[in-house]
Amino acid sequence: MRIARFSIDGNVAFGAIEGDKQDELVLDIIKGIPFADFELSGTKVPVSKVRLLPPVLPNKVVAFGRNYAEHAKELGNEVPDAPFAFFKPSTSVIGPGDEIQYPSFSEEVHHEAELAVVIGRMCREVPRERVNDVIFGYTCANDITARDVQRREKQWARAKGFDSSCPLGPWVETDLDASDLTIQLTVNGQQRQLGRTSEMIHSVEDLIVNISEAMTLLPGDVILTGTPAGVGPLNVGDEVAVTIEGIGTLTNKVVKRG
Amino acid sequence: MRIARFSIDGNVAFGAIEGDKQDELVLDIIKGIPFADFELSGTKVPVSKVRLLPPVLPNKVVAFGRNYAEHAKELGNEVPDAPFAFFKPSTSVIGPGDEIQYPSFSEEVHHEAELAVVIGRMCREVPRERVNDVIFGYTCANDITARDVQRREKQWARAKGFDSSCPLGPWVETDLDASDLTIQLTVNGQQRQLGRTSEMIHSVEDLIVNISEAMTLLPGDVILTGTPAGVGPLNVGDEVAVTIEGIGTLTNKVVKRG
Repeated sequence: MRIARFSIDGNVAFGAIEGDKQDELVLDIIKGIPFADFELSGTKVPVSKVRLLPPVLPNKVVAFGRNYAEHAKELGNEVPDAPFAFFKPSTSVIGPGDEIQYPSFSEEVHHEAELAVVIGRMCREVPRERVNDVIFGYTCANDITARDVQRREKQWARAKGFDSSCPLGPWVETDLDASDLTIQLTVNGQQRQLGRTSEMIHSVEDLIVNISEAMTLLPGDVILTGTPAGVGPLNVGDEVAVTIEGIGTLTNKVVKRG
Repeated sequence: MRIARFSIDGNVAFGAIEGDKQDELVLDIIKGIPFADFELSGTKVPVSKVRLLPPVLPNKVVAFGRNYAEHAKELGNEVPDAPFAFFKPSTSVIGPGDEIQYPSFSEEVHHEAELAVVIGRMCREVPRERVNDVIFGYTCANDITARDVQRREKQWARAKGFDSSCPLGPWVETDLDASDLTIQLTVNGQQRQLGRTSEMIHSVEDLIVNISEAMTLLPGDVILTGTPAGVGPLNVGDEVAVTIEGIGTLTNKVVKRG
């Protein structure tokens, strides 16, 4: 099932996507929130009539670095023996169609297409064999990075945590085997990144075991799983699109911060 | 004014502390939340009858590294030219008297006494001369750190973000010049850290200008300003106390994670 979060006439709700043709999609509005058992209301609204929002409002976004060998190499970095994680704050999250605001403190903002895992239940110290039980679903993410700031600052709160640096969407796909999906990114229609989730050094299971060993994950928290090779600059005016097989396409335009 | 957050009979509220003697303090319950203009209810309850909670529930905690020269040196690090920041997640926050749970993935958990700045209003790109307008007040923090994990992992999400790694409290002092205060930490009554906030390399104003250049700060967000020299290990059974002049004492006991 594909679950989107949206606003219409000032109200915010979750809905289940029906249909296959991009311009004929319909939302069946969900009663309440979708993390526990939920019911569809049967009240339907065309996707074209709503504004899609970030599909979840994460309490925290945990992102893993250098999880595709080719990407680590392209930036001149070694492949780490063990996963390592950083946070992106909730204030960095934007939704499909929202604008990436090019910040004033960087002159080298990069795109990074990533598979995002959405957590479905509160958990800590998740055993490997229970990881699937805590996953709500998957969405597309773009781990927007001020590369120049990242090079200068030892920890990446500013480089990867600035406002609008975490586009998520367009919706959460709850029925998906994410172990071998094509992940690609285009800028103005030209392909820049292409990889398969099977190329991850540490699997989704590894990453959730690793982070939940340290901290509690909450429903709606998001895990970013690393980016394949091909990262590069974004400029004001660019349209950047992340497409993951079986999920969909997350498109955002880059504007100057107002 | 000293503002605490507390629970009594299953209800959570903010209150203004009255009195000076530690065992005779009284809370005047605040109507609503204290970030905007607020009124005291006149309904009073002794502090001894309530459970003090973390004085705020931060959306994010932004922490700055190596902001006291003597501390940078004691770990063999250079003093950075510019501030650098990392995040601690909301799931790491505990209150006064709460237990620090020694995590299973570390064998070297350290204390780090820090002055915490609590943000009072939503803000971004705060000019230096407006910094005081966005500060709600100050509290004590302990930036609990898995030093062995910090050495191994390039980014510090696990080393400094595990559950219970961010004790805050006991309350927020809203009327305080924080530029030259004694900050000290004891373990089982023995002094381990001692410094003055005037020894910060980058001032509170510098830090808020730096982080707000990149991201929106929200009411209740917390900025940790670095730790003075004297960091060292904590063991299960230890009682660790951070005292900052003009604020008070934040005490927590270390237990094995259950």
